[in-house]
Amino acid sequence: MGDNKTLLIGVDLGGTNMRVGMVTSDGRMVHRLILPTRVTLGLDKVVERIIKAIQEVINQTIVPGNQIKGIGIGSPGTIDIQSGIIISSPNFPKWKQVPLKHMIEEKLSIPTFMDNDANAFAFGEKWVGAGKEVQSLVCLTLGTGVGGGIILNGRIWHGADGMAAEIGHMTVLPDGLKCNCGNYGCLESYASASSIVRRVCNAIQSGKLTMVLDYAKGNLENITSDLVYQAALKGDELAIHIMNETATFLGIGIANLINLLNPEMIVVGGGLTNAWDIIYPVTLKEVQKRALSEMAKRVKIVRASLGDNSGIIGAAGIAYFNLI
Amino acid sequence: MGDNKTLLIGVDLGGTNMRVGMVTSDGRMVHRLILPTRVTLGLDKVVERIIKAIQEVINQTIVPGNQIKGIGIGSPGTIDIQSGIIISSPNFPKWKQVPLKHMIEEKLSIPTFMDNDANAFAFGEKWVGAGKEVQSLVCLTLGTGVGGGIILNGRIWHGADGMAAEIGHMTVLPDGLKCNCGNYGCLESYASASSIVRRVCNAIQSGKLTMVLDYAKGNLENITSDLVYQAALKGDELAIHIMNETATFLGIGIANLINLLNPEMIVVGGGLTNAWDIIYPVTLKEVQKRALSEMAKRVKIVRASLGDNSGIIGAAGIAYFNLI
Repeated sequence: MGDNKTLLIGVDLGGTNMRVGMVTSDGRMVHRLILPTRVTLGLDKVVERIIKAIQEVINQTIVPGNQIKGIGIGSPGTIDIQSGIIISSPNFPKWKQVPLKHMIEEKLSIPTFMDNDANAFAFGEKWVGAGKEVQSLVCLTLGTGVGGGIILNGRIWHGADGMAAEIGHMTVLPDGLKCNCGNYGCLESYASASSIVRRVCNAIQSGKLTMVLDYAKGNLENITSDLVYQAALKGDELAIHIMNETATFLGIGIANLINLLNPEMIVVGGGLTNAWDIIYPVTLKEVQKRALSEMAKRVKIVRASLGDNSGIIGAAGIAYFNLI
Repeated sequence: MGDNKTLLIGVDLGGTNMRVGMVTSDGRMVHRLILPTRVTLGLDKVVERIIKAIQEVINQTIVPGNQIKGIGIGSPGTIDIQSGIIISSPNFPKWKQVPLKHMIEEKLSIPTFMDNDANAFAFGEKWVGAGKEVQSLVCLTLGTGVGGGIILNGRIWHGADGMAAEIGHMTVLPDGLKCNCGNYGCLESYASASSIVRRVCNAIQSGKLTMVLDYAKGNLENITSDLVYQAALKGDELAIHIMNETATFLGIGIANLINLLNPEMIVVGGGLTNAWDIIYPVTLKEVQKRALSEMAKRVKIVRASLGDNSGIIGAAGIAYFNLI
């Protein structure tokens, strides 16, 4: 699949950092840059930074005879895929109806394609990652929030308005914790890194003892989901409880996805999967309890395999498959 | 779409009754028979009854120059669509690996196609029913159980093993009521007719007063979901509580479907929709609370429009679109 002379640029545009990579048409990343997005500089400056980063990646890697055929950009938020417009994004609160595709194409004269960042992640994993042998998979990214991408028949399922796969906002406990979306009991309220931190902080404030607080040098603001994971590994009761709760709700969410879509694979990525060794067994048990047995038996539940490159590679792949 | 000279047979095979109809290639039903399935007679006798019913429908309606191009059968349970085998079905507990397609084709020499009954229902509604103008819809059938069908890009999404759309077994309350599947808190435990009856009976047995018991002449065995609906209309407190609970959990399930799939339409069918006037407002409110607003604004939530013919017409349509 693909020839190495066709090159693509993949951009994984995050609220904190942007990742820009050069990707071959067979999905290998040959070079990448990571730099702060600096949203506070304003839209025009951020777009300038994206363009400069793309140019730098091209200058650093291009060899005669090769050419950049396309640029793919994965962005958080609601994206109009056809027109390449960021309609709105929680990570870029001031951006409304930003025609990023057009802005990039105008400067670089390279065909540019956009999609949601979690869709790009899922597509990267399907193209050359954990899901490269399957045609249907659902991807969950467990980071600050919980993102999702659904691949059916080898293609991203965008839904009627390009907004599908908001897996983080599946209700898993109707009267559960409040989510950032305003609703209660969303998967994101339990299976995201930020929700772990919030729950641990709440428990500490209500008097629970935990070594997490020692790890954080007594300062709640230093608490991260990774510290909670470390404490769980050491047998800390609260940390174990919170990690188990996280994994259980993740299992409920995954079981629902299996019962609804009967996919070949569930791919789980994002920072929280650093704790996969303690999350996975609990999640699997919950899935086996709740997913119908035939579908549960066949589905593979795996960790994403491209690390933090899934988004870059997937964005480049979206460009590539739009072009060929 | 379609010519009236091409005719199809649609079979909606239920645990209690079978419905067999003659359907034109533009989705009009010209004649139908309804007869008891009589599962207790055993597989061979039931298949004989299906074949006889098909022949009867043909004899009663066929005119010279027309011909039956195909037979479609919707059956409850897990169906191997490619080979036309009923792998297993809760409604036919003794049937395992039944090659129904082959058995019908052998006798009638008409190409036969099989699918799950809820998929056939959904396809009927998409073809010529409530969803005829849309390309993506999710269908829920609220009867004894809760069935589901997912239509994406105008086609049934079967999943990797043909088992997708088990919407009734989406967890909507992790520690909720026990479901027939063995799990707890499935949508089917709250939004099916049988779960309404069960919850009302439990409430009566624990001492709750309700006019449902009068309607049922004091006999718990006479209680139906329709009596509960009638009592709710008259202001009966318990009946209203149970119907509201049903509608709320239906709303949670539908909101999850919207957030995951961003469909154009949700179609709700089955016997319980006789109570649509009191279910719908509560369900809609819950959906608006839980589905992301952009997707919730655009989706239409409607009642199925083909009555108890969706399954027949959909099964015929599945045959038709497999043939053309």
